[in-house]
Amino acid sequence: MRELPTYAALVDSFRKLPGIGTRSAERMASAVLEMRKEDALEFAEAIQNAKNRVHKCPICGLYTEEETCEVCADASRSHDVCLVVVSPKDAAAFEAVNGFRGVYHVLGGLLAPSKGVGPEALSIDPLKERIKKEGIKEVIVATSPTLEGETTALFIARILEPLEVKVSRLGYGLPAGSNLEYADPLTLSRALEGRKAL
Amino acid sequence: MRELPTYAALVDSFRKLPGIGTRSAERMASAVLEMRKEDALEFAEAIQNAKNRVHKCPICGLYTEEETCEVCADASRSHDVCLVVVSPKDAAAFEAVNGFRGVYHVLGGLLAPSKGVGPEALSIDPLKERIKKEGIKEVIVATSPTLEGETTALFIARILEPLEVKVSRLGYGLPAGSNLEYADPLTLSRALEGRKAL
Repeated sequence: MRELPTYAALVDSFRKLPGIGTRSAERMASAVLEMRKEDALEFAEAIQNAKNRVHKCPICGLYTEEETCEVCADASRSHDVCLVVVSPKDAAAFEAVNGFRGVYHVLGGLLAPSKGVGPEALSIDPLKERIKKEGIKEVIVATSPTLEGETTALFIARILEPLEVKVSRLGYGLPAGSNLEYADPLTLSRALEGRKAL
Repeated sequence: MRELPTYAALVDSFRKLPGIGTRSAERMASAVLEMRKEDALEFAEAIQNAKNRVHKCPICGLYTEEETCEVCADASRSHDVCLVVVSPKDAAAFEAVNGFRGVYHVLGGLLAPSKGVGPEALSIDPLKERIKKEGIKEVIVATSPTLEGETTALFIARILEPLEVKVSRLGYGLPAGSNLEYADPLTLSRALEGRKAL
């Protein structure tokens, strides 16, 4: 019994998704075959719509179906504070906590010289342009506290030095609700450095 | 920032797949947005093709793109031995080991009176018809050794009693390469029952 070519093609497509191996892809492809026809065609249409209607905001890089994204178009937000994130997903995480009322800028990645990702591959020049044009006064670099995240944050801080703009990065320390006992030494040393007066 | 409606629809579609929660669905929907456009449209087309071209073989219930499936159409296979499986996936597992050269019959589920799944919901009457019409001499019920799997196997054996057909179920015992130490008591007792002369 050979594999059906359409089934094999579907498995291949599922395998292109992050974290999906052959077994998971086969399980999902089988589920599509078992699905009601209208659900499956709705699924296919959802993919087409997402790809045809959604594009990146030309200002900040967030996803939008309009000309510019909702955040950039919102006059009630502070357009002089800009949170620099790696991906639209990270911006969504900040929106979910509802604590930030400035605007965003999506880098599109992290510097990784070993993988050939240099500054020109990221949206750093457009960030400089935005600071000049939009009069941004504060830039908060929200990269992860990893080697590449730190390198990228430091690089952006250095690049923005000539411009009159306050640059900061997220505070590092103990995550809320965590147990001191299980904190790693680096996190503990950063929590000490970042201690706050009571 | 509201969620984009097309993105939300895509997340909903991914959530309908087995074992996919909201977080995984969001990760996959984001991956679709990040995908190259041709990959995404290929993905949508693969779903449409799978749904439009693939259908169940009218004889055995396996998936096929032809009128009848490859197994039913293969004259070199023994059409008098029929392996009864729950789903096409199970048949694929037997095909992968290449040890079985008979034909298949897909039940489409297991008896589960508590969930309202009675014999009429499964492909049991068509199995009886096939035995009479095709002259099947041996039926091997390949359900899992679970409560529902056993119940279904016993039910099929009883239903087929009036017909002159040999009915068996898969042999139970220790899985190959397993460690006696970790075998559960039920598996051990079945391995004892099913002991073979050396």
